[in-house]
Amino acid sequence: MTAVIDLLRDIRRITSTERGSTRLAYTHYEDAAHDLLWQHLGALSGLSRVEDAAGNLFIVPTNALGDSPDPVVLIGSHLDTVIEGGWLDGALGVAVGAHVVARLAKNRRAHRRVGIVVFRDEEGVRFSTGLFGSRVFGGLCSARDLDARDGEGVRVRDVVPNPEGCIAYRPPVRSSAFLECHIEQGLRLVDANERVGVVTGVVGIRRYTLQGLGEANHAGTTEMRRRRDALVPVARVIAELPGAVEDLDDAVVTCGRIVVRPGAPNIVPGRVEAVVEIRAQDTKTMDLIEQRVRDLVAASGRTAPGKRAASLDLQPIVAVDPVATDAGLRHGLVDLLREKDVRHCALPSMAGHDTQHAAYRCPSGMFFIPSIGGVSHNPDENSTEEDIALAGEVMTAWVEHALARAES
Amino acid sequence: MTAVIDLLRDIRRITSTERGSTRLAYTHYEDAAHDLLWQHLGALSGLSRVEDAAGNLFIVPTNALGDSPDPVVLIGSHLDTVIEGGWLDGALGVAVGAHVVARLAKNRRAHRRVGIVVFRDEEGVRFSTGLFGSRVFGGLCSARDLDARDGEGVRVRDVVPNPEGCIAYRPPVRSSAFLECHIEQGLRLVDANERVGVVTGVVGIRRYTLQGLGEANHAGTTEMRRRRDALVPVARVIAELPGAVEDLDDAVVTCGRIVVRPGAPNIVPGRVEAVVEIRAQDTKTMDLIEQRVRDLVAASGRTAPGKRAASLDLQPIVAVDPVATDAGLRHGLVDLLREKDVRHCALPSMAGHDTQHAAYRCPSGMFFIPSIGGVSHNPDENSTEEDIALAGEVMTAWVEHALARAES
Repeated sequence: MTAVIDLLRDIRRITSTERGSTRLAYTHYEDAAHDLLWQHLGALSGLSRVEDAAGNLFIVPTNALGDSPDPVVLIGSHLDTVIEGGWLDGALGVAVGAHVVARLAKNRRAHRRVGIVVFRDEEGVRFSTGLFGSRVFGGLCSARDLDARDGEGVRVRDVVPNPEGCIAYRPPVRSSAFLECHIEQGLRLVDANERVGVVTGVVGIRRYTLQGLGEANHAGTTEMRRRRDALVPVARVIAELPGAVEDLDDAVVTCGRIVVRPGAPNIVPGRVEAVVEIRAQDTKTMDLIEQRVRDLVAASGRTAPGKRAASLDLQPIVAVDPVATDAGLRHGLVDLLREKDVRHCALPSMAGHDTQHAAYRCPSGMFFIPSIGGVSHNPDENSTEEDIALAGEVMTAWVEHALARAES
Repeated sequence: MTAVIDLLRDIRRITSTERGSTRLAYTHYEDAAHDLLWQHLGALSGLSRVEDAAGNLFIVPTNALGDSPDPVVLIGSHLDTVIEGGWLDGALGVAVGAHVVARLAKNRRAHRRVGIVVFRDEEGVRFSTGLFGSRVFGGLCSARDLDARDGEGVRVRDVVPNPEGCIAYRPPVRSSAFLECHIEQGLRLVDANERVGVVTGVVGIRRYTLQGLGEANHAGTTEMRRRRDALVPVARVIAELPGAVEDLDDAVVTCGRIVVRPGAPNIVPGRVEAVVEIRAQDTKTMDLIEQRVRDLVAASGRTAPGKRAASLDLQPIVAVDPVATDAGLRHGLVDLLREKDVRHCALPSMAGHDTQHAAYRCPSGMFFIPSIGGVSHNPDENSTEEDIALAGEVMTAWVEHALARAES
């Protein structure tokens, strides 16, 4: 049985860049990582390799395929990466899955009920989407998702094995649970000195275009009182955004993009488009933050100097609902961490993960291990060897719990 | 004698675009406009055409060239335009000059003492500079000005007739005064219902890079208190900029450009560069505004939430001193406007003009006529035919005043 870390090192070698790990979705590099995983587990008897309509890889007990009624516990994550990303984001959950499958291979009963799933295009770099493979698995894929294009104009529907099958989806196996482990990509575990984070759910994300519409004009000859500057009122909103979440736990608000037109130092901005993103773990909190942002927009519109103020508008562009993990799986995980005396805490995932889509298919759960320095999407992304090994141990125990629960 | 408006219509036909007027600096189109002017005046006896080191066109009395000690009153402006600009910006001052020269041709004494100058590259579109020809005439050209490149990599020094001569400059004629008339490109004359604006001076311009340096990070997993968001404190400064000039006349402050890196909706901004521009008619006011902007920057740095705030920095990148027009010329203009009972007011030019550089060579003065709707740098730029005709009349009288003054 290979240690988790050895398989991770093998996966790390598959990259299109010298710096960090680069395996974009539906490229040779993502395919090669899938192949490596199958080669790694192929020596074990009784396993089959299956791809679904989206190209998601299932390595599952042969008995679970076809007309078999046996549901399996799926362990998984993704093997695609961002550009020059780290070696653990996604790969950890897959390598841990392989470790557990190999470890349970001698347990004939468990071996027939545990498999791996590797979701395609979790990162969304290539098609500006994200979580695509698990979206299909969760039965959430729309025609619009398939029409997303990459920089060369290639559409998602051009690269998946079966576009129609992505929408009218049938998974190749029945699943009783989906379990994922992942690096935290933040600092909450490090700060709290915990080794495992039991994920309570994945936050919802809403994005809005904050548009200012004014009038481009000469920045010398246009008197201040005559201006309809589109940037000033938008800046006023951005400046106040942090205040919209300061009394809330596990909620963030960000403006990460702003474009000013025409964009010359000597022209009063005529049009500004900024993107505001909010994340929180329940719909009520998201509604509250949205209302606060809307209040800021209204207030900035009102207090703009002069009668000829630019007009502000906030339009939703993305809305992903928050998803709670399965309470039974979560409690089982907490019990076994207590038993093993592993320091842990409950926390929401502030980033999207395949778990949030898998939860639409079957009971799903997730845990984090600490990221050193909170660094991720970066070649310096890392976790301690002890934490990586612990992830394998914890997942093995959790799978046993999930199997027992499925049978009870 | 051609009316000013007829010559303007001829000039308007020389354009590289169908929409508006496009005659970029040192192109066939700018050259053709220079040629047209010479063809227009060539019938008059006693005039010579000379180009200086920068390619500025002088159409002056032949007796004023060479070893002659007679200084001339130069009337002028520019014939280059922005892309798809208007027909009056620059061309008005040149056409008015031609009108005056033709009108005074029968007055033998005046004819020997009046000429036209057409400055190259006033708009600065091609080389991202501006006021280049008059900069040379004013003795202000540096090697750096000659090294500016256009979009194709062509340098200013590659297109001027004599690069060295631009720095070690000798004008082809001695000048006792430079007089310019121009459209206002703003709404102050229209608002005040005045027909002529006596320009008190050209505002100074200072530009600064306002840089925010923080830390790019995941917009989900990075808690608010952990962020070093580079955009929020910069936005706070931009939001407060208008307050820095609200109690000041004839002063403006603008942020027309802002670039956020990495610029993704789901990444906390790590670096922001904004350009802040201030304009005012005297150095003391510019210093005051600069200090207020610096105070805003310091205050925004201080009040940023959390200890890990991004750092802010304000660095000067452009500084053009304000220039006052010649008091004697100004008073002479006011006297003759009173005599002629023309509604007029004094006002500073909020935009740069060749007059501000010519003032380093000889006493210089300028007046505006109203722009309809304040529109400029736009095909819709216009003034009434009456105002255009009035510009010719006023300039003729003003030149006579300047000649009398030079002789007294």
